[in-house]
Amino acid sequence: MALESRPPERLLEGRKTAWLVTIEEHCATPFAVPVTSTTWSQFLPKYLAGVKDRLGDVDKRLQIMDLNKIEAQIISLNQPGAQAFTDAAQGVEYCLKVNEFIYENYVQKHPKRFFAFAALPTQDGKAAAVELERCVMEYGVVGAMVNGYTATSKFEEGLYLDDPQFDALWEVAERLEKPIFIHPRTPLLSNIRTLADIPIMHGAPYWFGRETVEHVIRIMYTGVFDRFPKLKFVLGHMGEGLSCVLPRTDSTFRLYTAEARGPMKRTFLEYFQDNFIICTSGMPRTSALVNLMAEITVKHIMFSVDYPYESIAEMRNWYETVPVADETWKDMGYRNAVRLFNLPIKLE
Amino acid sequence: MALESRPPERLLEGRKTAWLVTIEEHCATPFAVPVTSTTWSQFLPKYLAGVKDRLGDVDKRLQIMDLNKIEAQIISLNQPGAQAFTDAAQGVEYCLKVNEFIYENYVQKHPKRFFAFAALPTQDGKAAAVELERCVMEYGVVGAMVNGYTATSKFEEGLYLDDPQFDALWEVAERLEKPIFIHPRTPLLSNIRTLADIPIMHGAPYWFGRETVEHVIRIMYTGVFDRFPKLKFVLGHMGEGLSCVLPRTDSTFRLYTAEARGPMKRTFLEYFQDNFIICTSGMPRTSALVNLMAEITVKHIMFSVDYPYESIAEMRNWYETVPVADETWKDMGYRNAVRLFNLPIKLE
Amino acid sequence: MALESRPPERLLEGRKTAWLVTIEEHCATPFAVPVTSTTWSQFLPKYLAGVKDRLGDVDKRLQIMDLNKIEAQIISLNQPGAQAFTDAAQGVEYCLKVNEFIYENYVQKHPKRFFAFAALPTQDGKAAAVELERCVMEYGVVGAMVNGYTATSKFEEGLYLDDPQFDALWEVAERLEKPIFIHPRTPLLSNIRTLADIPIMHGAPYWFGRETVEHVIRIMYTGVFDRFPKLKFVLGHMGEGLSCVLPRTDSTFRLYTAEARGPMKRTFLEYFQDNFIICTSGMPRTSALVNLMAEITVKHIMFSVDYPYESIAEMRNWYETVPVADETWKDMGYRNAVRLFNLPIKLE
Amino acid sequence: MALESRPPERLLEGRKTAWLVTIEEHCATPFAVPVTSTTWSQFLPKYLAGVKDRLGDVDKRLQIMDLNKIEAQIISLNQPGAQAFTDAAQGVEYCLKVNEFIYENYVQKHPKRFFAFAALPTQDGKAAAVELERCVMEYGVVGAMVNGYTATSKFEEGLYLDDPQFDALWEVAERLEKPIFIHPRTPLLSNIRTLADIPIMHGAPYWFGRETVEHVIRIMYTGVFDRFPKLKFVLGHMGEGLSCVLPRTDSTFRLYTAEARGPMKRTFLEYFQDNFIICTSGMPRTSALVNLMAEITVKHIMFSVDYPYESIAEMRNWYETVPVADETWKDMGYRNAVRLFNLPIKLE
Repeated sequence: MALESRPPERLLEGRKTAWLVTIEEHCATPFAVPVTSTTWSQFLPKYLAGVKDRLGDVDKRLQIMDLNKIEAQIISLNQPGAQAFTDAAQGVEYCLKVNEFIYENYVQKHPKRFFAFAALPTQDGKAAAVELERCVMEYGVVGAMVNGYTATSKFEEGLYLDDPQFDALWEVAERLEKPIFIHPRTPLLSNIRTLADIPIMHGAPYWFGRETVEHVIRIMYTGVFDRFPKLKFVLGHMGEGLSCVLPRTDSTFRLYTAEARGPMKRTFLEYFQDNFIICTSGMPRTSALVNLMAEITVKHIMFSVDYPYESIAEMRNWYETVPVADETWKDMGYRNAVRLFNLPIKLE
Repeated sequence: MALESRPPERLLEGRKTAWLVTIEEHCATPFAVPVTSTTWSQFLPKYLAGVKDRLGDVDKRLQIMDLNKIEAQIISLNQPGAQAFTDAAQGVEYCLKVNEFIYENYVQKHPKRFFAFAALPTQDGKAAAVELERCVMEYGVVGAMVNGYTATSKFEEGLYLDDPQFDALWEVAERLEKPIFIHPRTPLLSNIRTLADIPIMHGAPYWFGRETVEHVIRIMYTGVFDRFPKLKFVLGHMGEGLSCVLPRTDSTFRLYTAEARGPMKRTFLEYFQDNFIICTSGMPRTSALVNLMAEITVKHIMFSVDYPYESIAEMRNWYETVPVADETWKDMGYRNAVRLFNLPIKLE
Repeated sequence: MALESRPPERLLEGRKTAWLVTIEEHCATPFAVPVTSTTWSQFLPKYLAGVKDRLGDVDKRLQIMDLNKIEAQIISLNQPGAQAFTDAAQGVEYCLKVNEFIYENYVQKHPKRFFAFAALPTQDGKAAAVELERCVMEYGVVGAMVNGYTATSKFEEGLYLDDPQFDALWEVAERLEKPIFIHPRTPLLSNIRTLADIPIMHGAPYWFGRETVEHVIRIMYTGVFDRFPKLKFVLGHMGEGLSCVLPRTDSTFRLYTAEARGPMKRTFLEYFQDNFIICTSGMPRTSALVNLMAEITVKHIMFSVDYPYESIAEMRNWYETVPVADETWKDMGYRNAVRLFNLPIKLE
Repeated sequence: MALESRPPERLLEGRKTAWLVTIEEHCATPFAVPVTSTTWSQFLPKYLAGVKDRLGDVDKRLQIMDLNKIEAQIISLNQPGAQAFTDAAQGVEYCLKVNEFIYENYVQKHPKRFFAFAALPTQDGKAAAVELERCVMEYGVVGAMVNGYTATSKFEEGLYLDDPQFDALWEVAERLEKPIFIHPRTPLLSNIRTLADIPIMHGAPYWFGRETVEHVIRIMYTGVFDRFPKLKFVLGHMGEGLSCVLPRTDSTFRLYTAEARGPMKRTFLEYFQDNFIICTSGMPRTSALVNLMAEITVKHIMFSVDYPYESIAEMRNWYETVPVADETWKDMGYRNAVRLFNLPIKLE
């Protein structure tokens, strides 16, 4: 570029100096879970080594955040986390430990850089509710993250988030205004027969998103938001494709009997707009962001990375190019997170 | 509007007079299949009656086409069609009958208004190839439609379109330049455990699209397009959400080992752009069309309805409002279909 | 559509019941101005008769508003209004009369349906400031409208809104948080030599927008917003094309000397985002709205009609089709106006 | 990025290896014109020195093209060029020299890297027609560039491109299928009174575009395309804002008398779609490209730089981020130019 030198471009340049906040950012703890994700074994060894290193190294995390002007992360436990346990007591005990660990090692040590989503013992809806309330009160968590279905004693069955026992959890989440992040996990093998023989598709490239989507559909369909109209969920990966799926769900729904249409009182897109916060994690695709912005309001959209699986540098490089007004860019880049999670970060 | 009268608006008005071509339009024949779609029983009775009536009534079809300025439809058999048979000989016999029926009742009688997609006996790849070539030669079909997986003698298993035996079919389709429409069908119950208890989700509102998507992913992943680079598939419903899913598939794929990444030689989005024709059937959503137009080239996008499940009038009303240049609108509205299916319709 | 009957479409249907607020809506008063717009003589006689009728008929206005679910209009005087006077005393007297007239005939009689922009005697900046403050205090106006340049005693010269004497007006507008609408008027003949011989281009089809744009550029360039950073202007007609012009202005500006770049401290697009409210009046074009939404934040965009020149029914019909989330649609359709103009309308 | 290393991103990466073609790229010749652009004196001295250097240095041009993978440029003379002459004989002589010069120094020496737009003596329509035909036959030019109005002996008046004498030129251009580029020049001082005192606005930041736009409006309005329906013009800078202006022109036109509407037979947007090729030169703004793509078809849109005023590296960096399908990206990046200008470059 030296051959054609000139003062720096003014368009988009203001974005370089902004400090952003991201909300789907994972960590590891020393506490073991019964199973680990089957997708790990397929990762490139060098990449996997880097991921493992970055999952646990707080200083490197801060170094990378500083290099890329990330002011704060909301930290969440790596999947499948507490949802890997089948035993409720073990789940409770595990969550007590990991939530304390995250508080002590991230939030308490770097109170302006790290916030946290609680891990919840979803083996039991009431226990999950109790743990969420405890973490809000004791650790100041800004929400919770659930990694899809919860394991059960039957290998082929999972506990899905529309189960009525979770009403206890939703009651607390709604009352305390703490959003619940539904994060993907490797789906039940019993649910992916069509692609069972292509393991790469069980993870981020395809089935991760569908695992999450099917929770969302069950939650909407069974009327959770009719019972808890102010409850908010968070989704990563630009909404896991829902913005391109739900319009057809809504458009065709009218063709079915009332019985088939089930208990839900509003439309799928109405719930999607009112009860979901979506982040850009792991989906550096402008066309997908534009699509999302046409289906939900900007105040519910947030930039994120999916650290350490995705690269902060890559995601930020992409985000700086998206064709939105700079003021909207700042909203999605940090202001919305500060406002919706009530973070103690001062906005201009 | 009379109180504020003025000459007609010029913006978009030119669209009202254009005659369009649509490509995902179904019919019924007198020939029975072993099973019928389980989604039918959930339809509103009055709506279902209308659908059944319109599936078979050629005169009413023409009347509705005329009223809504639809110049031509490419006719295809109602799902699940030939794919419902488990026995190859029965499948072959069935296809001979229905392809002849559609030819005689639609194409031959109204050669300027109706074209046809052949039904194929996919119980056997070679038989399907033979039937496609026969239908091209004898009936002038412009392609074929396959309704997802083919039933097998094992209730829980289906035959998917990446099966090597279909190479015989792809060879004919590529050589004769006849695209293959992959149409949804109700998925295998063994594949939808997560939503098994919500039957409305087995059809158009959700699982229809996924059934199709999983064929597409298998076809891409297993390298079908590396063997048949000029082979073209057609998808309905704005691409069944793939335009919002594949960017993440491609972006994350690089993180896995070569073994996990499998035989495919190009990226998912490259196949999506080069080997797929997408139509708007049953997805009257501008944001989804805009998203699709950012992922594939305009020449591969075509307006369609999904008659008689969807309303021609409704779909056209929507299509007249989409924010694309009028010349692009005509391309997607009829010119692309005329060019890609080589229809004997004269373009201005 | 009866032939293909089904329950009503769910997509976009919720929009039909919403009551909207519009902000660029004109009226006439009995008080004469020295000149009338030269574009009137070119209007179709029947159309012009309708416009004149609707400009003054309050009952018909309410009838059309009701028919089209317009909850409230912000009323402004027809152009060129007070800006047609060259004499300051006459301007002041005229504004006293028209502002009282609009208050008594619209706002006072229908306090939930009509709000008002004050007319201002811009022959003198201080007098304009005084009149704005008076109208806020006595009539509760929500802002003011200025119709471009103010006539001067020299036929070939107009007074532009960057003139330092208007600092007095901006001080009041900023302090009282009352936006100033810059509305087009027929440009000075001395400024349109290139198209002087094509009179139709002097009005809405072309020069109207440019007259307004050149005020905006002068205001930005001379640093008005550096002196009054919270001052807000309103533009009609989707921003008069500025969203497609200012990116190049900003991008090329860096190539010039500091002297040429003049007094402004920020970029054109920064002012455009922070200091402008834009409405859709008279520009029923989705692509232009999409472009605007990529250059300024949604909270500054408002649906409007430009009654009675434009048709409320036509504009609403168009607006119901725009591909934005329904929640965003309501923001632009009425909530933003209620919030930014602090209208006494209760939002859900 | 090293801290988060991984294999390269797949999304958009394919673009890095493509070789592009650009069409608004200027050069200088040794032959003097009566006036030079008034905007030059305001450029930053160092930037201006670089521009002057790059305008004439063929080797450096090729070096920069190679560095940035620009396969070919269509070369055109720097503005105001031949349009600066008031005397027809001088204009003719000047064009003979510069067209020969460009042929010998660019096209002939580097026949795969450089193509040319002819300069035309527009002082006289017939002479311009003769020179275009000569340059096509002798030099193989692929079109011509006219820099706005032509100077006349009256300082305050220019000759605009709708003048009937240019029918001779349009006849040749249409018959030989050679598009005419209308390039901005500093406008007549008599036409910019409103901004006369802000010289920076006379050039690229504002008035350049308007000078060009007013030619386009005159050409459309006076029916040039009704007489020459296959005639094509080229515009730079993303269409000079016309895509955001013409919808309102068309929408409001219907309100005027037939007399006022003048001789044109079709709508402004129809001419814009059928008779214009638009390039991205000097407008690295995704939202503007998206808007343009909603108003004209992709086949008429071409990537370009505006070398040496704009930086090839900067423009390409931007273009690699635009959210269009890679196949569309290649169309706009080089295929459209190869096809429409019939360049001897082999496409995959």
